[in-house]
Amino acid sequence: MGQTAFALAPPWQVSQWFNSERALSPADFRGRVIAMHAFQMLCPGCVQLGLPQASRIARLFDPAHVAVVGLHTVFEHHQAMTPVALEAFIHEYQLTFPIGVDTPGESGPIPRTMVAYGMQGTPTLVLIDRQGRLRKQSFGAEDDMRVGSDIAFLLAEPERSAAP
Amino acid sequence: MGQTAFALAPPWQVSQWFNSERALSPADFRGRVIAMHAFQMLCPGCVQLGLPQASRIARLFDPAHVAVVGLHTVFEHHQAMTPVALEAFIHEYQLTFPIGVDTPGESGPIPRTMVAYGMQGTPTLVLIDRQGRLRKQSFGAEDDMRVGSDIAFLLAEPERSAAP
Amino acid sequence: MGQTAFALAPPWQVSQWFNSERALSPADFRGRVIAMHAFQMLCPGCVQLGLPQASRIARLFDPAHVAVVGLHTVFEHHQAMTPVALEAFIHEYQLTFPIGVDTPGESGPIPRTMVAYGMQGTPTLVLIDRQGRLRKQSFGAEDDMRVGSDIAFLLAEPERSAAP
Amino acid sequence: MGQTAFALAPPWQVSQWFNSERALSPADFRGRVIAMHAFQMLCPGCVQLGLPQASRIARLFDPAHVAVVGLHTVFEHHQAMTPVALEAFIHEYQLTFPIGVDTPGESGPIPRTMVAYGMQGTPTLVLIDRQGRLRKQSFGAEDDMRVGSDIAFLLAEPERSAAP
Repeated sequence: MGQTAFALAPPWQVSQWFNSERALSPADFRGRVIAMHAFQMLCPGCVQLGLPQASRIARLFDPAHVAVVGLHTVFEHHQAMTPVALEAFIHEYQLTFPIGVDTPGESGPIPRTMVAYGMQGTPTLVLIDRQGRLRKQSFGAEDDMRVGSDIAFLLAEPERSAAP
Repeated sequence: MGQTAFALAPPWQVSQWFNSERALSPADFRGRVIAMHAFQMLCPGCVQLGLPQASRIARLFDPAHVAVVGLHTVFEHHQAMTPVALEAFIHEYQLTFPIGVDTPGESGPIPRTMVAYGMQGTPTLVLIDRQGRLRKQSFGAEDDMRVGSDIAFLLAEPERSAAP
Repeated sequence: MGQTAFALAPPWQVSQWFNSERALSPADFRGRVIAMHAFQMLCPGCVQLGLPQASRIARLFDPAHVAVVGLHTVFEHHQAMTPVALEAFIHEYQLTFPIGVDTPGESGPIPRTMVAYGMQGTPTLVLIDRQGRLRKQSFGAEDDMRVGSDIAFLLAEPERSAAP
Repeated sequence: MGQTAFALAPPWQVSQWFNSERALSPADFRGRVIAMHAFQMLCPGCVQLGLPQASRIARLFDPAHVAVVGLHTVFEHHQAMTPVALEAFIHEYQLTFPIGVDTPGESGPIPRTMVAYGMQGTPTLVLIDRQGRLRKQSFGAEDDMRVGSDIAFLLAEPERSAAP
């Protein structure tokens, strides 16, 4: 089977990180699969389904192989979902994985990383492979069995694809 | 059985109302049972259990007989749970019953109505009878069957107890 | 308000009782509200919703005031849902309230008590008041809040209605 | 990494099949991963968790790659869980994957395939790889994400491991 050309995942444009002492980029996790959960703290589907699923991913898989990263992609109610509010939310919901605040857009309501990934809304789950390539992006809730399977397939790939 | 002396429910000290064009007080609902749900928008137990239960109360019982009222009793993370944030929350979670913002305390973090009722935290469910008397106050999640039963017992009481 | 004429609940025609050392009839519970749950052990809606709800009724309400009774109304798969199979089912599902086997019909698949009550299928919840009168009969799953409310209204009625 | 020596999955000793016109053996599914769910029709954990999960496996994965097979391993209440009762159960619960009746033991209550696999009880999930080897056997409920991941890892293996 030939090598399909998957594009590298766009960088994260983050103005502030929680649960991490330093700025993070997809490149920091090279060699690991990244499960990135894009959410808004006042989005019911994120609170009820997406974030609990992200926490289950973090509990099930060995962090040496799978990194869970949250991205707060505020595209509505900007005055309500400030970083101060997000900090309280993270505390109350006891989220422990790194969460970045997507940098507000320059000329519109959609923040920059959300634009770069072409996300349609929240929640969105993004899977990035060990080589930093964007492999899956799904808008809306997905069931746990599929997510577990999708991550396992990426983990089962050789860390480096055969060089030419 | 003699008449037990139940106290009148304390008035609500509310700085702002949502889903109501005018200020509300327990006296406005005399003749009806009031189910008052005290919550904080970033309290997981409120979002996952308490508020959905309040909505189920509003759907099950005839509004001519049972009034559901929310009270946003912010006693922590005050900067995060502002009225602006609450408005977005109400919109996103599609809450349609009247919700009042409990007036901040003068000398401490606990808002005034929460102090007046002696609430221990959120979520708290308060039941007020047709005569405006405080009949039940419970902190934490209660199952639906008990809540349905508690409300029905108040509805079954004669609207006016025998006068002296 | 005048006295509405509610009919007495038909007697139970039961060929065998479990969780009871003697035969039971509605009259045995006079003075109490009866929540009778009609089910079939291989009916998914009964196993998943109806029977757990019957157990919650038994836990919530004081048995001095509310009696929970099961009725195994087999109207299909008669060879599969025998009393021997029911006994194992009751053991495995840890049901502790009295359960009667509805007596098979003489000339058709519908058992006799099911016919007498005019039940449409399983699960069916029947509520009988303190005076032994049939007050509610609902086919299919009902939510807990409504059931709790319905039982409470019957409990709130005077034990004996005004005599003529 | 050297080839770990996984044993072939023991054959199924089945007295009767449902949802299959002919007898099945693990060898019939060579090249596919098999998810075998061992259950008893009156085991609450099987009805509430195990069988719904087996149905989700059957829905999620392509049947050309993953076969779901049920095994009715009756080790208690034998008179209640007869093939006649199982047939009604399969009909009522709308199970569509092949289900075999584990052949009763000769000298004890444990049926033969259950003995051959050394199962501790029900529900038990068994995963067999594309080469027919027993790769996982777990007693009790497992969460969907782990099961999805476990199956995907087996699917990701080369169909034939390197020959010696």
